[in-house]
Amino acid sequence: MEVVLLGTSAALPTVRRWPAAVAVVREGEVLLFDCGEGTQVQFQKARLSPGKLSHIFISHLHGDHFYGLIGLLTSLQLSGRDKELNLYGPAGLVKYLHFMCKLSQFTFAYPLHVHEFENAEVKEVWDLGDYTVRFKPLKHKIAAYGFCLEEKTRPGKFDAAAASELGIPVGPERGRLLRGESITLPDGTRVTPAQVVGPGRPGKKIAICTDTEFCENAIALAAGAEVLIHEGTFGHDKEERAAATGHSTVTQAAQVARTAAVKRLILTHISARYDHGQERDLLAQAQAIFPETILAEDLMRIEF
Amino acid sequence: MEVVLLGTSAALPTVRRWPAAVAVVREGEVLLFDCGEGTQVQFQKARLSPGKLSHIFISHLHGDHFYGLIGLLTSLQLSGRDKELNLYGPAGLVKYLHFMCKLSQFTFAYPLHVHEFENAEVKEVWDLGDYTVRFKPLKHKIAAYGFCLEEKTRPGKFDAAAASELGIPVGPERGRLLRGESITLPDGTRVTPAQVVGPGRPGKKIAICTDTEFCENAIALAAGAEVLIHEGTFGHDKEERAAATGHSTVTQAAQVARTAAVKRLILTHISARYDHGQERDLLAQAQAIFPETILAEDLMRIEF
Repeated sequence: MEVVLLGTSAALPTVRRWPAAVAVVREGEVLLFDCGEGTQVQFQKARLSPGKLSHIFISHLHGDHFYGLIGLLTSLQLSGRDKELNLYGPAGLVKYLHFMCKLSQFTFAYPLHVHEFENAEVKEVWDLGDYTVRFKPLKHKIAAYGFCLEEKTRPGKFDAAAASELGIPVGPERGRLLRGESITLPDGTRVTPAQVVGPGRPGKKIAICTDTEFCENAIALAAGAEVLIHEGTFGHDKEERAAATGHSTVTQAAQVARTAAVKRLILTHISARYDHGQERDLLAQAQAIFPETILAEDLMRIEF
Repeated sequence: MEVVLLGTSAALPTVRRWPAAVAVVREGEVLLFDCGEGTQVQFQKARLSPGKLSHIFISHLHGDHFYGLIGLLTSLQLSGRDKELNLYGPAGLVKYLHFMCKLSQFTFAYPLHVHEFENAEVKEVWDLGDYTVRFKPLKHKIAAYGFCLEEKTRPGKFDAAAASELGIPVGPERGRLLRGESITLPDGTRVTPAQVVGPGRPGKKIAICTDTEFCENAIALAAGAEVLIHEGTFGHDKEERAAATGHSTVTQAAQVARTAAVKRLILTHISARYDHGQERDLLAQAQAIFPETILAEDLMRIEF
């Protein structure tokens, strides 16, 4: 998996930080978390293929997290998209898209499936094939959600040498063993998966909490993740201001990362008030609590 | 006056052309024509002061011309704006702002006056002090408008030497003459403005037509302008495609410029299909008809 940070600003964008957007690239598929203004161009700058975009998740309906959505969705159509696209977000998203289409006399020609969290048939988790995406409410000024993308456990490695020694022919029998089924050979020998397939390989996990105060649900989403992307709008000295505006300090973000025992923390949603030097201070504040912290920059890529 | 081209793309933005937005800087005031996605950051890149923004005009409600509006308006507030702002655009703009505010639970705290063209009390022209802005419908897929900003005629130059020779004291009498009134000196001598004030200096004029087929109203708006900013989405060979999509070829834009006898034409709204080399061809096609043509680039500045 690769994370591409498309936008890392707080409410006010700057010339070096565009509003919130995180792309996750996985096996040639692109998932987008939040879609602040300018995301469609950041997408181009990062050389991501719009054709591979399959799922978009919107954390909440504050402008810095979704004002780029309508531009991206309509541009996909102008670029000739006919593949389906899934969009997940808070209640209001469906009405919003209808309103915008009517205003500009625009009609979506590709299949756009919108799933509002509050009306989700599933509870807190979408099964998307090789992975799931779980969502939980965070603590913000309006209804806002955090996410974790978790790959399913992949089958263990197939031991071809052991299989040949047991006389298992190359063919569908091997596939059945890989899928966890036992087989019986023509000579009556019973072979179980454990004889030729190694232990299952756990999938990777990434958690994304782009706008929240310090909260338990962020810790729950992040538990054991390879990467936690968490907002750190303010420095440690602005804890009151953070609480008043529904945000976290970088220290609080580091506490979430430490409590959730993640491997790496990426701080994003950095207030425009901080210059380069002050941002280094923010990073130091977080690293004092959770050393494996990175301060996000626009177009930064993290492989894991 | 100075024109700053903030966004020059057609419907699809690219990494070097953001969607439509033109700033006009005049005596420390900034007027904005169209506000495509990303305008607030382009505004920062151009080092324009948001505090000087006084009037925003939206040509029509296609996304590439207004998707950046809500982000700009809300960011102005987050930056502490308390000064009034005037917004002009097609019917639908008021409902749009209400809808967006409700969706994000946002309330405008600075005075935002929205004037919809269709409900304008004035007919086709706003008197904005030292200048007027006129609007006329253009020819596009949905209701779309073009603009011309025209400075009022300024008083002629005051001939201080002649005034002293005539015995006019430095003081309010000189101001009255400058404003076109005659005065009587203490000795009974009558002095008329023509004796000490040169001929009135005509104001400058700029016309902006960002989305339209070739049309008479564009010519009417541009008549005699110093600068015409006109869309030229396609090359000459795509005349049919231009007509089908409500756009102009660069040749048609040049014909508007020539017929309107403007001083300079700036071609904008350039289709993403053209690379650098092809753009030079577009410019050559226009210059064959109207030599004083410039091809717009993002952040280009033109003083006049």
